[in-house]
Amino acid sequence: MVLTKGELSGLERRYRANLINSIGGFKSLVLVGTKSREGKENLSLFSSLVHIGADPALCGLIVRPNTEGQNTLGNILRTGVYTINQVHAEFIEKAHQTSAKYPEGVSEFEAVGLTPDYVEGVAAPFVKESIIKFACELVQHIPIELNQTHFIIGKITHMMVPDALVGPDGFIDLESAGTLTCSGLDSYHATTSVIRLPYAKP
Amino acid sequence: MVLTKGELSGLERRYRANLINSIGGFKSLVLVGTKSREGKENLSLFSSLVHIGADPALCGLIVRPNTEGQNTLGNILRTGVYTINQVHAEFIEKAHQTSAKYPEGVSEFEAVGLTPDYVEGVAAPFVKESIIKFACELVQHIPIELNQTHFIIGKITHMMVPDALVGPDGFIDLESAGTLTCSGLDSYHATTSVIRLPYAKP
Repeated sequence: MVLTKGELSGLERRYRANLINSIGGFKSLVLVGTKSREGKENLSLFSSLVHIGADPALCGLIVRPNTEGQNTLGNILRTGVYTINQVHAEFIEKAHQTSAKYPEGVSEFEAVGLTPDYVEGVAAPFVKESIIKFACELVQHIPIELNQTHFIIGKITHMMVPDALVGPDGFIDLESAGTLTCSGLDSYHATTSVIRLPYAKP
Repeated sequence: MVLTKGELSGLERRYRANLINSIGGFKSLVLVGTKSREGKENLSLFSSLVHIGADPALCGLIVRPNTEGQNTLGNILRTGVYTINQVHAEFIEKAHQTSAKYPEGVSEFEAVGLTPDYVEGVAAPFVKESIIKFACELVQHIPIELNQTHFIIGKITHMMVPDALVGPDGFIDLESAGTLTCSGLDSYHATTSVIRLPYAKP
């Protein structure tokens, strides 16, 4: 199919959401852990993480405005701290279930059966079941007026990865960790290595 | 390993780049096609595409400043148009090779052996070999002062996907297309479907 601008905006809402969410390829799949100022834990699934740079270590996240029971944005803006946890095949159903709109005050950790875990110096909860994870401090908040989403830039402050998965060059073997990727709104995929290529020269 | 802020900034440059590029999970892998005002074609590999919203259809891209032979940013800012093309296993070596720093004036299409392709109404070149692709018009440019990169927000104006890959709900079967994902700086992966899950309810 070939669709142009007018045709795109005329599509049925859910159909367009699936199509536009698929067109960019496979996406990073992570659980973002936060805590409110009152100490309530929140956990939410995201496919909008993007690498910004390695020095300083920065990443970006597109976040929707708070809605009932979805407090990721508010918690990040108020506390300045969040964790990012890779999702592995063993707990994909639980990770997906965090997308449900639970009533205010319900912790997604409890509701779906994942375990909050803390390390010294990080106020937000990690996901114990995730074996590759990191913490960020908020360094820039950019509201995107075009659709009322928010671009959250974080600086990585802590990283946790099993030694056995880190190569001599710093490359992390995500495949052996069973880390998943996603496509569209609700499709989850495991990976198989195709190739690693040397630094490209003309 | 557990690394905290001070330890992270003390890591050897290339090691840190591999580590930080791996920590966020698998990433979208796309070729971005642009054209200079003078008509010179440019093609470059990115792993920093992020979905922003489906209505309007918006996506974001982290782009580095122009360097010799890498004119993606300048071309997008000057012409306001670019194409995004998924990368399939059949041409992964060619896609990777577009990262090489070719001298000014060399088209990466020619240098690596990919074919520029045009459709009516889009001034930038698509990659003929890519079977899932779309065009964007620049709608917002956000310089990121923290590390001199740029966040480019585009509105999708054209989409091209083979009919056979689009499901009745608009979901695109990227796996059957042979679309790859990447991890770290140079590792490419095929995928295997694990599960599709229904809309989550409490």
